[in-house]
Amino acid sequence: MKPAIIDHIGIAVKSIPEALEFWEKTLGLECAGVEEVADQKVKTAFLPLKGSAPCSELELLEPTSDDSPIAKFMEKNNGRGGMHHVALRVDDLEAALAELKSKGVRLIDEKPRKGAGGAMIAFIHPAATGGVLLELSQR
Amino acid sequence: MKPAIIDHIGIAVKSIPEALEFWEKTLGLECAGVEEVADQKVKTAFLPLKGSAPCSELELLEPTSDDSPIAKFMEKNNGRGGMHHVALRVDDLEAALAELKSKGVRLIDEKPRKGAGGAMIAFIHPAATGGVLLELSQR
Repeated sequence: MKPAIIDHIGIAVKSIPEALEFWEKTLGLECAGVEEVADQKVKTAFLPLKGSAPCSELELLEPTSDDSPIAKFMEKNNGRGGMHHVALRVDDLEAALAELKSKGVRLIDEKPRKGAGGAMIAFIHPAATGGVLLELSQR
Repeated sequence: MKPAIIDHIGIAVKSIPEALEFWEKTLGLECAGVEEVADQKVKTAFLPLKGSAPCSELELLEPTSDDSPIAKFMEKNNGRGGMHHVALRVDDLEAALAELKSKGVRLIDEKPRKGAGGAMIAFIHPAATGGVLLELSQR
């Protein structure tokens, strides 16, 4: 396995429209679309950084329920948003997960599951990475 | 201003050699070099994600002193490492800072200063970004 690019960085926010005031209007990025991921109880907004090909994105994550994982993250973070996870893109997610498993790496998702934007994703446990919530993504 | 790419993601770690066990040996990335940034009291290691051009990097940050900003970050984070900042690359950092200042954005660095790898950098205050420590970088 050799992750190819930073697929995206996930940022927990209280409100996507409010967050876009900064990321779009102040900073000059463009929101490519908002999507609800019902089983994670979040709305997501992707902002591609178009200066590289293939490009990386920022992902804003707004909880749609108080028991959303993102709501819980913000609760622990003194009610504030902040950087939530980093996603690296791999060519073959099944093979990557099998390799990590064989190396004894603690996984949150043992099998690929559907993420936002039609990607297949899996999370690695922060205990395995020195405190980083790491996602692997295949598009 | 229109940031072009994710320049890098900064990850606080207790020990770069220990962290490389995961990021290099387990995950398959390659460390492009280790550099000490004396005035920030850190050692940094850059791991380029070579699947895009220009490419983004992971930056591991190991404190070299107990009063390093990275040591303080880990202290607040229950002694653990984790995602510390995200850096977006801009073409003209002086112009970007002037634009942000005119928009009333709270800056940590009002002027560009030297970062690792010969980049000129400046940090924006997390209060302005919804809790993200954001760096702008010009190379």
